[in-house]
Amino acid sequence: MIELGENRYGKRAIRLVKVVRDPDGTQVRDLTVDIALEGDFAAAHTAGDNAAVVATDTMKNTVYALAADQLTGAIEEFGTTLGTHFVGFPQVRRATVDLREHRWKPIAGAGDSASGAFRRVGDATRTARVTATPDATVVESGLEDLVVMKTAGSAFSGFARDRTTTLPELRDRIMATNVTVSWRHSGPTADWDASHAAIATTLLEVFADHASESVQHSIWVMAQAMLERHAGIDEVRMALPNLHHLPIDLTPFGGTNRGEIFVATTQPHGLIEATVRRTAS
Amino acid sequence: MIELGENRYGKRAIRLVKVVRDPDGTQVRDLTVDIALEGDFAAAHTAGDNAAVVATDTMKNTVYALAADQLTGAIEEFGTTLGTHFVGFPQVRRATVDLREHRWKPIAGAGDSASGAFRRVGDATRTARVTATPDATVVESGLEDLVVMKTAGSAFSGFARDRTTTLPELRDRIMATNVTVSWRHSGPTADWDASHAAIATTLLEVFADHASESVQHSIWVMAQAMLERHAGIDEVRMALPNLHHLPIDLTPFGGTNRGEIFVATTQPHGLIEATVRRTAS
Amino acid sequence: MIELGENRYGKRAIRLVKVVRDPDGTQVRDLTVDIALEGDFAAAHTAGDNAAVVATDTMKNTVYALAADQLTGAIEEFGTTLGTHFVGFPQVRRATVDLREHRWKPIAGAGDSASGAFRRVGDATRTARVTATPDATVVESGLEDLVVMKTAGSAFSGFARDRTTTLPELRDRIMATNVTVSWRHSGPTADWDASHAAIATTLLEVFADHASESVQHSIWVMAQAMLERHAGIDEVRMALPNLHHLPIDLTPFGGTNRGEIFVATTQPHGLIEATVRRTAS
Amino acid sequence: MIELGENRYGKRAIRLVKVVRDPDGTQVRDLTVDIALEGDFAAAHTAGDNAAVVATDTMKNTVYALAADQLTGAIEEFGTTLGTHFVGFPQVRRATVDLREHRWKPIAGAGDSASGAFRRVGDATRTARVTATPDATVVESGLEDLVVMKTAGSAFSGFARDRTTTLPELRDRIMATNVTVSWRHSGPTADWDASHAAIATTLLEVFADHASESVQHSIWVMAQAMLERHAGIDEVRMALPNLHHLPIDLTPFGGTNRGEIFVATTQPHGLIEATVRRTAS
Repeated sequence: MIELGENRYGKRAIRLVKVVRDPDGTQVRDLTVDIALEGDFAAAHTAGDNAAVVATDTMKNTVYALAADQLTGAIEEFGTTLGTHFVGFPQVRRATVDLREHRWKPIAGAGDSASGAFRRVGDATRTARVTATPDATVVESGLEDLVVMKTAGSAFSGFARDRTTTLPELRDRIMATNVTVSWRHSGPTADWDASHAAIATTLLEVFADHASESVQHSIWVMAQAMLERHAGIDEVRMALPNLHHLPIDLTPFGGTNRGEIFVATTQPHGLIEATVRRTAS
Repeated sequence: MIELGENRYGKRAIRLVKVVRDPDGTQVRDLTVDIALEGDFAAAHTAGDNAAVVATDTMKNTVYALAADQLTGAIEEFGTTLGTHFVGFPQVRRATVDLREHRWKPIAGAGDSASGAFRRVGDATRTARVTATPDATVVESGLEDLVVMKTAGSAFSGFARDRTTTLPELRDRIMATNVTVSWRHSGPTADWDASHAAIATTLLEVFADHASESVQHSIWVMAQAMLERHAGIDEVRMALPNLHHLPIDLTPFGGTNRGEIFVATTQPHGLIEATVRRTAS
Repeated sequence: MIELGENRYGKRAIRLVKVVRDPDGTQVRDLTVDIALEGDFAAAHTAGDNAAVVATDTMKNTVYALAADQLTGAIEEFGTTLGTHFVGFPQVRRATVDLREHRWKPIAGAGDSASGAFRRVGDATRTARVTATPDATVVESGLEDLVVMKTAGSAFSGFARDRTTTLPELRDRIMATNVTVSWRHSGPTADWDASHAAIATTLLEVFADHASESVQHSIWVMAQAMLERHAGIDEVRMALPNLHHLPIDLTPFGGTNRGEIFVATTQPHGLIEATVRRTAS
Repeated sequence: MIELGENRYGKRAIRLVKVVRDPDGTQVRDLTVDIALEGDFAAAHTAGDNAAVVATDTMKNTVYALAADQLTGAIEEFGTTLGTHFVGFPQVRRATVDLREHRWKPIAGAGDSASGAFRRVGDATRTARVTATPDATVVESGLEDLVVMKTAGSAFSGFARDRTTTLPELRDRIMATNVTVSWRHSGPTADWDASHAAIATTLLEVFADHASESVQHSIWVMAQAMLERHAGIDEVRMALPNLHHLPIDLTPFGGTNRGEIFVATTQPHGLIEATVRRTAS
């Protein structure tokens, strides 16, 4: 016998720009939204019966329709609005809403800062994931495309060696990564923007200050600090590629490389993933 | 208290080209390999102790070292070799090896087909995933970047409607997708290449022949046929984006669009994911 | 004084899919079209006067409107139709139309090849550029994303050396490249498809057969053959990246690399560009 | 007869990171460099004779070798060093050096700002092009990936109309673009960083302040101001895609879109390119 196992469907890459024309100044909200639904959709698969199917085109329309009135606060709130909406369909058992916010900042004109002109801020994207079920809503906040580097305080040594190991022990190396991080909130947060800013500051501050023995170690140290300093979150997930910077041998050219000249590479790269959380007890 | 949860690490995007210089003719093997390990790595995180860490640089070296002698058959076999190697470290509880093979075919010269020249074949990438634990090895085979289209025999109608639903009922529409599919083998396979070719043929043949009521329906029909016709596999997973082709309204230009002229779009897109499997009983 | 220099404008990435529903079998045409216009557009720049401006949205509409009736042959023909249309505006002095055709081939069903199902062919994109002026139309045909490799018959030696040169002399190396090539027709061609196929065959055949001393040399040898064997073209342009395949040193692992194991790299890469043409006299 | 026409070759995507470990604080320089040479290279093509060829691998090595001592100032200076070096080969008639600088800014730690940690700044890349010939060196500076938007003060109306024109006249629209701009210096500049900052400020300020009748008009107004306010430059080139933001019709959902809700699109897009310069007289 053959059966349907896990399944979900939805709309990806819904691009939404909202221009909020306030008397106090225009604001640009620029979001990419992904929706995924799970629930009683077996008949669509096995019988070609679409009666329960919320079309992905409808999902897209819903994002636009709700954005007009409901996108007034943080993406965590708008995601909750969307998740709650979709889990309101009786056939939906779980709605997952992923949101990315692309930030824009005003461009000052010569005399007047309220020009209505903006430039996109490119150094990290704020993210949120809302998972709504009929019983509960879980909110995660995060960041992606945050590219950071340590030029000091990073080592990698004392690792396992076998016949193919050629990597030298390094007590001083460049560590560079493109941070993807999310943290799960244990409950609602009064001010999502302030919470996000504070937690991101902890992440960056600890990244700067700690002495790293490996990317694994860095994840732990950063995540531990995030959990210790921010009571409202109970789990941190990180995925850190190791964007290797290889020192160039200058001796063939009569030079000496005193830890100054590197080639930045992307292929291959390490990838370290971990979850750090409060224990249940 | 704070604890380490799920974690894994490894090397991504190890690029390997092997030129097999056989008397019968040269062959090119072009692989991208990803390795991920899980196991007793908590000390690396929480204590900065790397004694158990197999460096990702070592993983890369191992791929090259083993490729010289061991990459003689299908990627499923080479993946098994790699997975078995890495799970041989006592601290490793699971090794996941993902392989993609980029195919090249010989270019015929004017007089002699054994020119040693090749062109890359771009229409789908063969994939394999080997998951090795101390007790067992699971092999999945698959395809990605297989872009297909149905210009007939595709409908989407009878779906749920609410106030934001504007999508018309369509008994005849273009369905296009970029297939990512994998199938799990219930045991070893005598001829991985023949198995892959046969299963891929089933997938394509059923894609061509079936009358689709939705992408969900198509996944079921294709996966069901794959399981029915191929006894050696017990689970099929698919992720199919719905690459919408929107008919262009030609009436403003004095024309009529009889289902002929479409704009191909990528943003937003639907994404339908499902697993279909044999029941345990 | 400040003046307007060279300028042009147009629409890029117009995506067009035409499903030709012939009694003899359905055919899919999948094109990406770029349009650029030059002419009397100074007032749009310097005075903000758009009276002469053909909106890029109109360009897009024109491509769709004309595709319905006029896209019946090769992209060279459709490009000529479009170029002639746009240069028909009196303010346009030159219209450049770039076309890429993404090929699809039928998928055979179990019993019937006319399923209306197709798969995208990924191994090279056919291109055309039509440059229309009030007096003349120049047609170029070409290919891009044709990825090829020579595993034999490729050398690079005898080059200039200075203090930073560390590259060894190589009488036997892998040469891999992603060919972008175009050839200019000296006049109309009776059968664009046959012409394209014949010239592409020459390119591939010579690529396979020749002994290469460098990428520069290969361009010359291939282009020369294309011009010698195909009287209807008078100029060939090529841009060939050198996609370096670096041999892996296996000696640290106790192995020997007999020209078999390579890492494929993309950064950095060489780029060799040249035009080869018939002399005027 | 067949002859070699225009040709050039070089190395692309040379990735270079220099960590300057100054007592006053560490600094990160992160560059991507492209080199292209033109000159007496016909024999490499037509005779397979590489005696004059500076290997692209040597170009890469030269960038690293010179970076150690010579990369101490702006990319315009390092580009001049490189261009001068390569045009020093007697067979080289022109060396074109393109440089992109990816900026990093320090991350402040808890107590000490000199942590050696940095984050990449993602909102625009500074560029330079140096074109060196035996007689002269021309320096252009610029920016790319500067993404900007006007939510007010942008119109497009009064354009040419034909039977396929459906675009409405718009006195108020979103204008968004990804600026690629370069400006040519008429001679050496005492402080490249200050010059770049001042000219970029003019660009942004005028972008914010001006009333745009079209992208063409915006290019002119911005470039004119750059030339008027900055005596040291004599030519400005811009390539501005028109990243269309299409208003969503909310009426099917019972809503009204008061210029607030847009979908951001990338395909197709307009592309407007122009050069603005001082007149010779």
